[in-house]
Amino acid sequence: MENNHLQNWINKRKERRNSLTADSLVDRLRNGDREALATAITLIESTRSEDLKLANAIIDACLEVKNDSIRIGITGVPGVGKSTFIEAFGKFLAEKQLKIAVLAIDPTSQATGGSILGDKTRMQELSQLKNVFIRPSAAGQTLGGVARKTRETIHLCEAAGYDIIIIETVGVGQSEIMVHSMVDFFMLLMLSGAGDELQGIKRGIMEMADALVITKSDGDNSKNALSAAKEYAGALHLFPPKPSGWTTPCFTCSAIENKNIDKAWEHIEKYISKTHQNGWFSANRSKQDQFWLQESLKEMILADFFQSDAWKNEYNLMENKVTNGEISAFTAAELLYTTYKKSRK
Amino acid sequence: MENNHLQNWINKRKERRNSLTADSLVDRLRNGDREALATAITLIESTRSEDLKLANAIIDACLEVKNDSIRIGITGVPGVGKSTFIEAFGKFLAEKQLKIAVLAIDPTSQATGGSILGDKTRMQELSQLKNVFIRPSAAGQTLGGVARKTRETIHLCEAAGYDIIIIETVGVGQSEIMVHSMVDFFMLLMLSGAGDELQGIKRGIMEMADALVITKSDGDNSKNALSAAKEYAGALHLFPPKPSGWTTPCFTCSAIENKNIDKAWEHIEKYISKTHQNGWFSANRSKQDQFWLQESLKEMILADFFQSDAWKNEYNLMENKVTNGEISAFTAAELLYTTYKKSRK
Repeated sequence: MENNHLQNWINKRKERRNSLTADSLVDRLRNGDREALATAITLIESTRSEDLKLANAIIDACLEVKNDSIRIGITGVPGVGKSTFIEAFGKFLAEKQLKIAVLAIDPTSQATGGSILGDKTRMQELSQLKNVFIRPSAAGQTLGGVARKTRETIHLCEAAGYDIIIIETVGVGQSEIMVHSMVDFFMLLMLSGAGDELQGIKRGIMEMADALVITKSDGDNSKNALSAAKEYAGALHLFPPKPSGWTTPCFTCSAIENKNIDKAWEHIEKYISKTHQNGWFSANRSKQDQFWLQESLKEMILADFFQSDAWKNEYNLMENKVTNGEISAFTAAELLYTTYKKSRK
Repeated sequence: MENNHLQNWINKRKERRNSLTADSLVDRLRNGDREALATAITLIESTRSEDLKLANAIIDACLEVKNDSIRIGITGVPGVGKSTFIEAFGKFLAEKQLKIAVLAIDPTSQATGGSILGDKTRMQELSQLKNVFIRPSAAGQTLGGVARKTRETIHLCEAAGYDIIIIETVGVGQSEIMVHSMVDFFMLLMLSGAGDELQGIKRGIMEMADALVITKSDGDNSKNALSAAKEYAGALHLFPPKPSGWTTPCFTCSAIENKNIDKAWEHIEKYISKTHQNGWFSANRSKQDQFWLQESLKEMILADFFQSDAWKNEYNLMENKVTNGEISAFTAAELLYTTYKKSRK
């Protein structure tokens, strides 16, 4: 009897799982079923080979749904107030009857178990709104893996009719460059004061930004924030012009005083309109697709060598010889490559 | 008779070529024979397989010679006055009894037949000094090929006892990033005026610079140059600090009025002393060696796919599908990789 009951239970679970067809999930997801969207994302994040097939079918079906969404990247060092900003910004957009998805990429989550969006108290008001979908970062993934899952999740959210896709990332490591390569508009949040606060911002990130936002411009701090904004605005025009034809604005804002949150949206609207007119918007999306095709393929081809333990040893031996000046870097590369190529024949 | 004479002539040429042993060339080169240095570089640039063997033996022998040279990269858009600056700067260094080698990397030389150093009237005075060796860029090479030849030429020049190796490059394309990865100190020459002149400078280059030099600060232009320098100096402190611990200076100079040429050298001396003290100098050189080992190996592995015409077609087909939104970038990469991997078995 016991066994029978267990078998029944197992069969039911199997049945339920098997009844998850790509078509039914995509149908529900397209009709605004948030649970279906969440299930689809979980399938995408899964490492089970049977889930993978289903996941691929879902992605293909979602790609067919056209949606002129806006993808916004938001980055900044820890403590800059990203979640407070997104909470205020998201609520502002939700009031405009827009549907907002917030996805997070957290390169530190492998070590800490997730520092962004892991905490349920974050974005508490925003997460309770009907038109808002918040999804934390998939943990335990390589950065390349996270990139793939995030790009695919964007497609799913778009098929589900979300208008604005916000990708949040911590301003450390390589993740901003990754996020920059998958969004239409890239915002860098910064603290006032050009001293220690800057230490965390990686070189090159400032030049990538489509908007610099000085956060926490409230109370006693607003004077500092304003003068920081002025200083950055002055510096920004020294940068080479962006290929999008866009001039990066710099402004202060306060999430807790709800100050200038509308300004962020105004700039994004202007940007979208300008880049639709000059053709950059779609050219950039094509370039991003091409970039991810090439990057993913390169990563796969290189993994054959660089993720093999056997080759790691050979490589380290050569690296030591190069560092000791026994052999040139190019000769070392040639020797490694010749042995590697022979081994594959 | 005629034929006999011709045969003799051919035999003599062969003999002379065969008598070129790596040891004899390296010996002559180390003794300051500029002709031997030039011959060795020509061998390195050659694509004949028999020359390649000799070239590799020469490089290995040269690597054994230790020389605490200083490698300086100089870049800037066409028209900024690179050659005029190098002429003045080189003469200044030569007066200090330093031996100077000037190598050029010109990514445009493939198309135009060489726009830097191709013209013999450039650096006319400098090229006539005894302690100066000037070598134009090897033409008809890929950027990766040019990188390799240039790195190897640096080793040769160092074995030949040159104290200062200047690598000049045009501020267009990827070449500055390449040069930055092979020098100790990286200088960006700029024109005054933050308008159109900036257009040519690639994004990210300003942050790489160890010194910003506003050129042509002479006559009526010196006032503009000074105010530009002030503006850039203000902007520079907004950049994240450099891992070398160095603070990038910004100053004006005039090559034709010989103004502040000494200042460039002062900054380099300070930089060298600081980075020797904090360990960055040798850490950076090791990092550069490791970078070139990894980059070269990656390039070789990827060339199997990306330089094959057969795969180019497959790739373009997939790229079109991705751009048309028929398939995701990652699925496309996976399909290509799976077919590629099968083909190698």
